[in-house]
Amino acid sequence: MANVLAINTGSSSLKWKLFLMPAETLVAGGMVDRLGQPSSKLVIKYNNGAKYELQTEIESADDAVHLILDKLIELKIIDDLSQINGVGHRVVAGGEIFDKSTLVDAEKLRQIKKLGELAPLHNPVEARGIASFMHVLPGVPEVAVFDTSFHTSLQPMNYLYSIPTKYYRDYGLRKYGAHGTSVRYVATQTAQMMNKPLKDLRLVVMHLGNGVSITAVKDGKSFDTSMGYTPVAGVTMGTRSGDIDPSLVMMLMKKLGLQDPDDVIKILNTESGLLGLSGLSSDMRDLEATRDSRPESQLAIDIFVNRIIKYVAGYIAEMGGADALVFTAGMGEAEALMRTRVINKLQVFGVKLDETKNEAAKGESDITGAGSSMRVMMVPTNEELMIARDVYEISHDNN
Amino acid sequence: MANVLAINTGSSSLKWKLFLMPAETLVAGGMVDRLGQPSSKLVIKYNNGAKYELQTEIESADDAVHLILDKLIELKIIDDLSQINGVGHRVVAGGEIFDKSTLVDAEKLRQIKKLGELAPLHNPVEARGIASFMHVLPGVPEVAVFDTSFHTSLQPMNYLYSIPTKYYRDYGLRKYGAHGTSVRYVATQTAQMMNKPLKDLRLVVMHLGNGVSITAVKDGKSFDTSMGYTPVAGVTMGTRSGDIDPSLVMMLMKKLGLQDPDDVIKILNTESGLLGLSGLSSDMRDLEATRDSRPESQLAIDIFVNRIIKYVAGYIAEMGGADALVFTAGMGEAEALMRTRVINKLQVFGVKLDETKNEAAKGESDITGAGSSMRVMMVPTNEELMIARDVYEISHDNN
Repeated sequence: MANVLAINTGSSSLKWKLFLMPAETLVAGGMVDRLGQPSSKLVIKYNNGAKYELQTEIESADDAVHLILDKLIELKIIDDLSQINGVGHRVVAGGEIFDKSTLVDAEKLRQIKKLGELAPLHNPVEARGIASFMHVLPGVPEVAVFDTSFHTSLQPMNYLYSIPTKYYRDYGLRKYGAHGTSVRYVATQTAQMMNKPLKDLRLVVMHLGNGVSITAVKDGKSFDTSMGYTPVAGVTMGTRSGDIDPSLVMMLMKKLGLQDPDDVIKILNTESGLLGLSGLSSDMRDLEATRDSRPESQLAIDIFVNRIIKYVAGYIAEMGGADALVFTAGMGEAEALMRTRVINKLQVFGVKLDETKNEAAKGESDITGAGSSMRVMMVPTNEELMIARDVYEISHDNN
Repeated sequence: MANVLAINTGSSSLKWKLFLMPAETLVAGGMVDRLGQPSSKLVIKYNNGAKYELQTEIESADDAVHLILDKLIELKIIDDLSQINGVGHRVVAGGEIFDKSTLVDAEKLRQIKKLGELAPLHNPVEARGIASFMHVLPGVPEVAVFDTSFHTSLQPMNYLYSIPTKYYRDYGLRKYGAHGTSVRYVATQTAQMMNKPLKDLRLVVMHLGNGVSITAVKDGKSFDTSMGYTPVAGVTMGTRSGDIDPSLVMMLMKKLGLQDPDDVIKILNTESGLLGLSGLSSDMRDLEATRDSRPESQLAIDIFVNRIIKYVAGYIAEMGGADALVFTAGMGEAEALMRTRVINKLQVFGVKLDETKNEAAKGESDITGAGSSMRVMMVPTNEELMIARDVYEISHDNN
């Protein structure tokens, strides 16, 4: 039995969950918010419903880690620090270096920082979070779990862009994908639900959250995925554009009089997608609530579904078929209507939804309709548990 | 009976074909090359095999038009200028203004020039060509036929990018598509071959030339198309990248130290695609010839096919099925092996090719295999004839 922390460090926050492994029991979870600001806040949820809150100034990630660990003991969630057997950290970009989760040492920490070019808003702060835990919990295995690792199985046919290959060789310009930890978890669970080895299944996993990605999983590996060099590519998302004619970057620079292309990329990441189309909200619930009165809301929904089904169809083609279509993440889990919209638009491939099961779906659910050519599944994602599993497996192998 | 000229004006060339309408007989054709240079060249092919060539300095488009018309009389292809009953001109960009071919007057000529923002290398010189004919042949109907008109039937769901809609309203940033005249011709011929009204068919037209586009045709109209705001978007082409993560524009500017985003767009238009991937050639024949010895050639072929089949599958899904898949243009017409590669990768949809018919295909051919779920057709495109048809129809309506 081992206590494993799964950590997600953001620019001003630190989220965590504590699992008892290998039972996979969620023992506690919480976050530190507004890190480095006078009004930092610490929240801990534990004992299946208890909640502890503290408003105080937390200056550094080191301070946050100390405070969390102190409170874990104070609240009797653990007896002492020796009961923390491993810590896993979400890292956004692993580049081509990290094809799986890895024990972090000083050298690997340097590499993670260096990969910050691929994820400037994420890798540096994540590296800081890892460093804090290494500092506060010396001797405890720290494991980095990369959003991109699952996609390192992509073949050149699918990771190369049709640009001069020297730009791939010299600057690493290729498709890296994202959401890999989520997709790996969901694919694993789906295989279990279908009672088949994952390596024998062809899945299309639709991760429909704030970020949206579609991934083709074949032979147990990521075969193709909609996000690209960065997460802005692919389908329409909450605030991200997904695929556009690259000439628009040039035209927007000219029309808006911008000197720095980063300013356009920022528009494409933060003002686009459902928000930009609807002029209202990046949240699908707001669009669903207003679609009868606002044509823009209905149009944003239609475009969202249209881009998804085109990717799904493309992936069915390139895998030579699919055994299951799988919904996960925010919308994928909560919005039965969105699942209906998507599957209805894929009817030409013989896929059918069971509307009653779809409406009722809560937790892992098979929502396949009678006579469907493929299974349709809803599988809640759990990146933190996937991180904890990796930590347990890796620290186990090393003991 | 009417003699109709179909004109394609380039930056330093003027290509033409003369049709006898409505019989659709090709009477003569030719080009002026290196226009404005000391070594301009005029070529005329006529009388089913005769060829006339002249090397001389041709300074202006007006001079070229005069010379062509003089030679038509000199070579007894026509008796006098009164026998030219109409002239049609290819125009690349018609924006949202021109949803069909149109008689050109001074106002429309101004609009065509103004749309040069959408096609700076094309519309201005095409407008110049039209002006020359208006000048030299006063009173003869001049008709503009737009590459984009066929795609003006796209609905907002498919022409809008998922960016703030104000950029569409203020700057016209949307999908316009290209190859519309080719696709319209090919779709019309396909319906005739299938003996059904075009409006009752759902087609996916693969225009596989130097530029490559995939178009979904539904209810007789363009429903979706792979090229975008500019022709750089969509699938991998000879030298164009097709879709990429828009962030790559930003990264290439930074990595290459470029100040002007146009420099990146130029790379994506002229150094990318098959050429950039193979490091050898933009011509599929060169890649086929070297694929056994050069892995890069094989990879470029694989990527080319992969991008096509993903678009085709997406269009099958969004149309709720397809009645026929249609190959046209350079590769689409000449490369039986390419057709085989594409259809083989779409087998999951039940589409089958007749290999014998495919190998033998020359001219309009039904190459559908036994038991196929959709028809498979090869239809040579003929944009010039489509232009001549439009001219004949429009000038007829106006007489």
